[in-house]
Amino acid sequence: MTLKGKDIVNIDDLSLQEIETILDSARRMVDIAKGRKGSNALEGKILASLFFEPSTRTRLSFETAMQRLGGGVITIAGQEGSSLIKGETLADTIRMADGYSDIIVMRHPREGAARMSATFSENPVINGGDGAGQHPTQTLLDLFTMREKFGRIDGLHVTLVGDLRYGRTTHSLSLALARMGASMSFVSPDIIRMPDHIVNDVKELGVEVNMTNDLKAEVPGSDVIYMTRIQKERFAEEEEYLKVAHSFRIEQGILENAKREMIIMHPLPRVDEIDPSVDFTSHARYFEQAFNGVPVRMALLKLVLEGE
Amino acid sequence: MTLKGKDIVNIDDLSLQEIETILDSARRMVDIAKGRKGSNALEGKILASLFFEPSTRTRLSFETAMQRLGGGVITIAGQEGSSLIKGETLADTIRMADGYSDIIVMRHPREGAARMSATFSENPVINGGDGAGQHPTQTLLDLFTMREKFGRIDGLHVTLVGDLRYGRTTHSLSLALARMGASMSFVSPDIIRMPDHIVNDVKELGVEVNMTNDLKAEVPGSDVIYMTRIQKERFAEEEEYLKVAHSFRIEQGILENAKREMIIMHPLPRVDEIDPSVDFTSHARYFEQAFNGVPVRMALLKLVLEGE
Amino acid sequence: MTLKGKDIVNIDDLSLQEIETILDSARRMVDIAKGRKGSNALEGKILASLFFEPSTRTRLSFETAMQRLGGGVITIAGQEGSSLIKGETLADTIRMADGYSDIIVMRHPREGAARMSATFSENPVINGGDGAGQHPTQTLLDLFTMREKFGRIDGLHVTLVGDLRYGRTTHSLSLALARMGASMSFVSPDIIRMPDHIVNDVKELGVEVNMTNDLKAEVPGSDVIYMTRIQKERFAEEEEYLKVAHSFRIEQGILENAKREMIIMHPLPRVDEIDPSVDFTSHARYFEQAFNGVPVRMALLKLVLEGE
Repeated sequence: MTLKGKDIVNIDDLSLQEIETILDSARRMVDIAKGRKGSNALEGKILASLFFEPSTRTRLSFETAMQRLGGGVITIAGQEGSSLIKGETLADTIRMADGYSDIIVMRHPREGAARMSATFSENPVINGGDGAGQHPTQTLLDLFTMREKFGRIDGLHVTLVGDLRYGRTTHSLSLALARMGASMSFVSPDIIRMPDHIVNDVKELGVEVNMTNDLKAEVPGSDVIYMTRIQKERFAEEEEYLKVAHSFRIEQGILENAKREMIIMHPLPRVDEIDPSVDFTSHARYFEQAFNGVPVRMALLKLVLEGE
Repeated sequence: MTLKGKDIVNIDDLSLQEIETILDSARRMVDIAKGRKGSNALEGKILASLFFEPSTRTRLSFETAMQRLGGGVITIAGQEGSSLIKGETLADTIRMADGYSDIIVMRHPREGAARMSATFSENPVINGGDGAGQHPTQTLLDLFTMREKFGRIDGLHVTLVGDLRYGRTTHSLSLALARMGASMSFVSPDIIRMPDHIVNDVKELGVEVNMTNDLKAEVPGSDVIYMTRIQKERFAEEEEYLKVAHSFRIEQGILENAKREMIIMHPLPRVDEIDPSVDFTSHARYFEQAFNGVPVRMALLKLVLEGE
Repeated sequence: MTLKGKDIVNIDDLSLQEIETILDSARRMVDIAKGRKGSNALEGKILASLFFEPSTRTRLSFETAMQRLGGGVITIAGQEGSSLIKGETLADTIRMADGYSDIIVMRHPREGAARMSATFSENPVINGGDGAGQHPTQTLLDLFTMREKFGRIDGLHVTLVGDLRYGRTTHSLSLALARMGASMSFVSPDIIRMPDHIVNDVKELGVEVNMTNDLKAEVPGSDVIYMTRIQKERFAEEEEYLKVAHSFRIEQGILENAKREMIIMHPLPRVDEIDPSVDFTSHARYFEQAFNGVPVRMALLKLVLEGE
């Protein structure tokens, strides 16, 4: 098995063994990711960092990852990214970037853009999020964060909270968790609940799922509470939004009955879903989770460019 | 002869021998440009990449070129570039960038901006396009693309198609081709035909030129067909534009009588001048041409910074 | 004494000995800053360059400084910077950048933003200017420029000219000069004169200060004339502004009675305060001053990241 030359478009493109390989490699990257150790593993290589819509965390963590391994970066971001979408075809932009680099990471507002780009690029393409589609490296860093804490995914109970309908990250994450043997609770207001096709896929993998809108009741049984942002734009009435935002929010009070080892995660940025006082509890793991984007992306860049 | 320390503002600033030196050096850069070989030739050097108007291809290929050789890059692009134009004088901006780098590449909307900048900068300035003025590295990569294919420029017949009046790249290219012994056809609608002063300069170099608006008739005799974009804004009437855009377009049908070795080039981005089905023919050379920007710019950076 | 791990928020955070250490180290950086010598002192380290408002000189000189020492850079600038301010809290943005880098330099429109960021970042934060607050690296490069010229600060007479009320750089500079034994003249229109609390602080350090609006009279006694921009927006009437702008302007005529060794400085960008003809006199030192941002920031990055 080798990941060398492989496009990373969808988390489902990766076998469980490939996911384990990436997570193992990421662990070995942590010291370099923290700047404690140097590396020239990717010296002379260039990452094309193409952000046709903004995603500061994804962009910066990829750019740090590449440079921590000695590689260089060329960037399209901001207005230049959105202008390019209007100008030439995506195929032509990708061919240009392909000629100027060894690997492409891209974020695009249109679902399917990454898959299409992979067909036009000779070098590997990593999907950094495409519209309502996939964001596989987010899933990998989420899995890494859980595995680093608990030493395993199998047997964990993960509670996903918030906008489970439009929140792209929770879809891929649930499927990956199911494949790896975690059980789940899906906690959300009814109008933004997890889509049926995801629920069905998870159940078909033989995993128990509990769908509810009572966050408090789920806290004691959770090993991981995975929060996501609820966007005001999803609601017709401001009043309706405020009611919902209030019920699906983590504050210190709600944590009284939590397991001592339980961790709270969030893909960030957050709006109001986690009270800042929670940041200083031992449960808060979202900043470390953000950092984990660096070693996971380092592992991926190295495996895709160089192999094992 | 040495290019060390030389400003590269206009293709005419370079002797034929200097052009040959750059193209020879570019060939030796190809393996590094493709990431197959590393180089630290410009380690510790800094390129200031100043884009006062957007040109993604030029910017990214210079930034890759510098990094493939081990150098660093500082960038002004997007809104920051256009704001600077309104703020301080160009002279002051250039002196700042000069103090922070070893070499400047700049794109500017005003003709003559690069020449003026060169007088204020102690370090060399490379013109990455200045308004209706020059874009010498585009010409160099165009020549490189032809020479890599045919082993020579002398004796080739090159057909330039499209907006030959406002299309800056075709002006410098025709003069360079004439100096190097290629004959040419200029194919365009009458209102955007090649300016008389260029035609006269080419003829004075003893080169035959055929001016026409019949693209189809030129195909069989061409070694190179060099397409350019026709901009809608040049025409008073939409209808007039559409008629023209249709006649100066390459589709597979028109290629039936082409020489087997004929190549199609385009500075990109394209709009509609080349049918995407042509991309998959052996004639299409425009993506390789775009890639060639990297080794040619690597060669130039190295020769100007370090000499032979 | 070590600067390792220290936040650099305010020039007053630095002891005189620490300032001397930085200036001594900056002198040793000059050859590397000019690209004559290489360095890998910060190889594998990453600078997060966070510009929530534009400051091209500060940003580019830090990015060059980091790369001249072999380090890498991730950048937030332009529209992305201002959007982030509206999106998540500064604390969350800083924690993200902290996880992706070894050191942060930041520019922010709000006074106090850098100090607050330093409390949320594990790694050191360097203030690149925060609203009406501090800009300590500007003060350091100003001091460096004077000391390189005269070999000392003690005993110099420095005349500060222009907008001394809102011009942030002159406040920290006067206090630092007073601590280091320079006497000063403050030359400005009355409505934008130096704030009383600064004048008092300077006097309490036992330093003589002359407050006036007669620039011409101050020229003969000055070792350094430090010009700053006067912004039209500070005046109710255009006419009032024009009168003022005219009186606080350096032209060749005014320099007739200057000491031969006197130098003119300006933090740049300038508008109209210094006639371009002055650029070619031996007094002009503002372009070298801008360049000095590189060795001074190199020294600071190295001392804060690595210690002596």
